[in-house]
Amino acid sequence: MASDSTRDLIVRAADELFYQRGFEKTSFADIAEVVGISRGNFYHHFKAKDDILSEVITLRACKTKEMLDMWTRNAKTPADRLRCFAQMLIENRKNIQRYGCPVGTLCSELAKLDHPSQGGAGMIFGQFRSWLREQFEALGRGVDADSLSMHLLARSQGIAALATAFHDETFIRREVELIDTWLDDLKQAPIKSRSRRAS
Amino acid sequence: MASDSTRDLIVRAADELFYQRGFEKTSFADIAEVVGISRGNFYHHFKAKDDILSEVITLRACKTKEMLDMWTRNAKTPADRLRCFAQMLIENRKNIQRYGCPVGTLCSELAKLDHPSQGGAGMIFGQFRSWLREQFEALGRGVDADSLSMHLLARSQGIAALATAFHDETFIRREVELIDTWLDDLKQAPIKSRSRRAS
Repeated sequence: MASDSTRDLIVRAADELFYQRGFEKTSFADIAEVVGISRGNFYHHFKAKDDILSEVITLRACKTKEMLDMWTRNAKTPADRLRCFAQMLIENRKNIQRYGCPVGTLCSELAKLDHPSQGGAGMIFGQFRSWLREQFEALGRGVDADSLSMHLLARSQGIAALATAFHDETFIRREVELIDTWLDDLKQAPIKSRSRRAS
Repeated sequence: MASDSTRDLIVRAADELFYQRGFEKTSFADIAEVVGISRGNFYHHFKAKDDILSEVITLRACKTKEMLDMWTRNAKTPADRLRCFAQMLIENRKNIQRYGCPVGTLCSELAKLDHPSQGGAGMIFGQFRSWLREQFEALGRGVDADSLSMHLLARSQGIAALATAFHDETFIRREVELIDTWLDDLKQAPIKSRSRRAS
């Protein structure tokens, strides 16, 4: 049990450090220092940083599931649930302005490293995508629910990216408001696109 | 002259490697290998990776200026110029799907490293922001030209982030089409927001 607990502490410390400093930059020594254990004890639990990354991704997937489940429980309508998603940008604005979105920045870094875990990290985007799609389906948008889900996910990623570059909280709030307005309008009219308009 | 030329080759190679692998991951040896010079010759030109980064940022700023100037020259109306910006996502789709947006991913990495050049990298976003704002102003959107510029910049960043995670070209094309439709609508009606609607 004590051994499991140390392992958990290592994964939780790595989760934060990978987010704050990046995966490549974070060393075994950095993680060991945060956890307060010796190198020897550390290597007893993990031999390779890639193994820690796999567990960090699993931890993040579990935390994402918990959050999505909570939104499903606490928000009564699909529209309110979609607002919970957008609201997350405001709730996490301090961290987002400093370190970006934990999912997007990890995916981006692993893509450049051509890392075998990039698919695993992408699965967390997949969790959001599926959950958002379900909400759009519940709003009666069966045909374009997945496109709408990807559109909303992209907007949230764009807001996070520029928030990190410009450190502008007003921008985050204004964009979240635009998403809320877009969601209001969605309930009334189909999504606009040239092809659909032409057809 | 020969010395200047080697220096340029180093900066151009570093530009590509920083984009493809990330700044932290790229070593002096990686750059020297691409350029095909000895370590000794390399150190004659650059003593620190941070110095190369500064020159890479300057190079990217110059290339960005050239591209924006070209769009200004080649596209006749502000709306067409804004479409050039969105079209860039389709033109660069292969690289974006593999490595993300060069500006966004560098800013994100430098933010996590808390690197002194993060402001410099952010200036490239600033170039796009100013240029986009000018186009929206020319469209008669003086009051909210900067908000519209940031909105469009954010959408492009979000598209790039998800394109890297999902490798989905159809998604890129669909989102660029939505931007085109949004630009069409903008010419006719003010941007929708709750606060403005309520006022």
